[in-house]
Amino acid sequence: MSRDTITFSHGSGGRIMQELIRSLFVKNFKNKILEQLDDAAALQLPQKNIAFTTDSYTVKPLFFPGGDIGKLSVCGTANDLAVKGAKAVALSLSFIIEESFSIEILKKIVESIAKTAKLSQVSIVTGDTKVVGRTEADGIFINTSGIGIIDKKMNVSCRNVRPHDAIIITGTIADHGIAILNARESLGFKPAIKSDVASVYPLVKACLKYASYIHAMRDPTRGGLASVLNEIAQASNVGIKIYEDRLPIRKSVKNACDILGLDPLYLASEGKIVLFVDVNKSKQILAQLKRHPLGRNARIIGQVISKEPIVYLETVLGSKRILPLSEGEILPRIC
Amino acid sequence: MSRDTITFSHGSGGRIMQELIRSLFVKNFKNKILEQLDDAAALQLPQKNIAFTTDSYTVKPLFFPGGDIGKLSVCGTANDLAVKGAKAVALSLSFIIEESFSIEILKKIVESIAKTAKLSQVSIVTGDTKVVGRTEADGIFINTSGIGIIDKKMNVSCRNVRPHDAIIITGTIADHGIAILNARESLGFKPAIKSDVASVYPLVKACLKYASYIHAMRDPTRGGLASVLNEIAQASNVGIKIYEDRLPIRKSVKNACDILGLDPLYLASEGKIVLFVDVNKSKQILAQLKRHPLGRNARIIGQVISKEPIVYLETVLGSKRILPLSEGEILPRIC
Repeated sequence: MSRDTITFSHGSGGRIMQELIRSLFVKNFKNKILEQLDDAAALQLPQKNIAFTTDSYTVKPLFFPGGDIGKLSVCGTANDLAVKGAKAVALSLSFIIEESFSIEILKKIVESIAKTAKLSQVSIVTGDTKVVGRTEADGIFINTSGIGIIDKKMNVSCRNVRPHDAIIITGTIADHGIAILNARESLGFKPAIKSDVASVYPLVKACLKYASYIHAMRDPTRGGLASVLNEIAQASNVGIKIYEDRLPIRKSVKNACDILGLDPLYLASEGKIVLFVDVNKSKQILAQLKRHPLGRNARIIGQVISKEPIVYLETVLGSKRILPLSEGEILPRIC
Repeated sequence: MSRDTITFSHGSGGRIMQELIRSLFVKNFKNKILEQLDDAAALQLPQKNIAFTTDSYTVKPLFFPGGDIGKLSVCGTANDLAVKGAKAVALSLSFIIEESFSIEILKKIVESIAKTAKLSQVSIVTGDTKVVGRTEADGIFINTSGIGIIDKKMNVSCRNVRPHDAIIITGTIADHGIAILNARESLGFKPAIKSDVASVYPLVKACLKYASYIHAMRDPTRGGLASVLNEIAQASNVGIKIYEDRLPIRKSVKNACDILGLDPLYLASEGKIVLFVDVNKSKQILAQLKRHPLGRNARIIGQVISKEPIVYLETVLGSKRILPLSEGEILPRIC
């Protein structure tokens, strides 16, 4: 077994694993809590009111235009906290690695995690590494779980949405889904479509002064915008109407969807938020979002209608189409 | 694709995934936080001083004498919190499942998780499910991350160990490692050797009145007792001596190790703690441990000697043998 690839010893609890932890993880994520190398991290939180979330990442390919599994692992989990009105403060990081995986590639992923965590001002405080045999995993899977501090003014839940709420999306839809598909299947759309993977907390922060007018937030990842709207419609028992001609979508993404016969409403973003806000403050919140680079394409795309929990799309031609929850899997392993 | 197996749709974010979440997860883990079905759980913690940990579980086989991957996923993570002096209060749960995995088996695993969590008085508050293709994972992998409340009197760390500390183990070594090996390789040792997988927090609780005399705790999982002692020796920069004739080990486990040529000092337990305690209170702490069913085989097995960070075993014959960190992997996928 080459020294340049992952062996079972790297997950053994013995000397080789210790070396990996010290030379790769502790070195890159440097912080005093992780350096303790205890089985659990001791944290002194600034408040008792927290958000807690978990996500496993199985994206394929590991590197794609706009990001990689490492960046996605930090942003995806930080974003689940952000849409709960929380700033991520601590992440756990757990690897499941296939024997024979390249240590060089692992290093690149770890560096990407470290860089993204630093940018997002969140610390990797505890971790785990498991090694499984060849063909028992596909390269590498990553789990990150996160603790976030909920802003005191925030009280968002997918159950809090009310009739007449305005619906805002902070930017273009479907970029991540199409970027992954294009990269994985070598479809050759050029220039390569970039994933929008980004930490969206700055957008939440930008709206904090209107916190009490924000009723729900979601990031439209797996299942896309249509799935998020359906979940909210069900949880809050409201009807939702959005307008096709208001949906922000890149021309390149639209073209790819048309050619592939895919509906962008069901494809993932990884750097966007859907907000349900008080209609009387929707313009002010939109203005706040548009001031930030991540939100410059933000738009009000529809509103909540007080009827049964159904999501409607009003098409460009003026007809009404129901957007159901997706039935099958459109794109596996996009996150 | 049969309705009785996992399909890509179960990880899609669409209707089939929603059904899985509601009919299996929410139903079994019933608690008000999980039922919110937000991307992150909002928690009101009783204090700001917490422990946070993560572990991914890849054990093979999924079911073994004494436990299963579900029970292990709850106990293992709760135990990492327990040895930091913390009572687990909230767990996250993330599945990576191979397409075509049996829903019946998933149901059994989920029921085991629910039962173990209930016994351990910890709630599953947030989760995630990813589905990957056939041969892209080996059945099912589980990540649990956990938040625990550190007892105010506890201040344990693998860096806190001092010369003359007594070393206690709360019961027999190597049970889990041999149980998994026996089950996986159909070695036929009979009666089947049972894993000791259990939540060890009750043992920590039993010692709370001596909290200030407990300097470090670890659960000897991967790499076994020898690895834990080496980690502590390095972190606290102390020498450690243990006595072979004091090590609690089941006869069946000892026999299996002899036949297989395996050293039980390097094999995993999943329901034991190694404690480093003030020598002047070691008997009182031992007595507390022995009163609990999980600690009835507890013993003082050695002490800390103030020299370079090396771990010695004094054999039955009186000779001294160095116990290094393990070099290779002895048993992959035991947790």
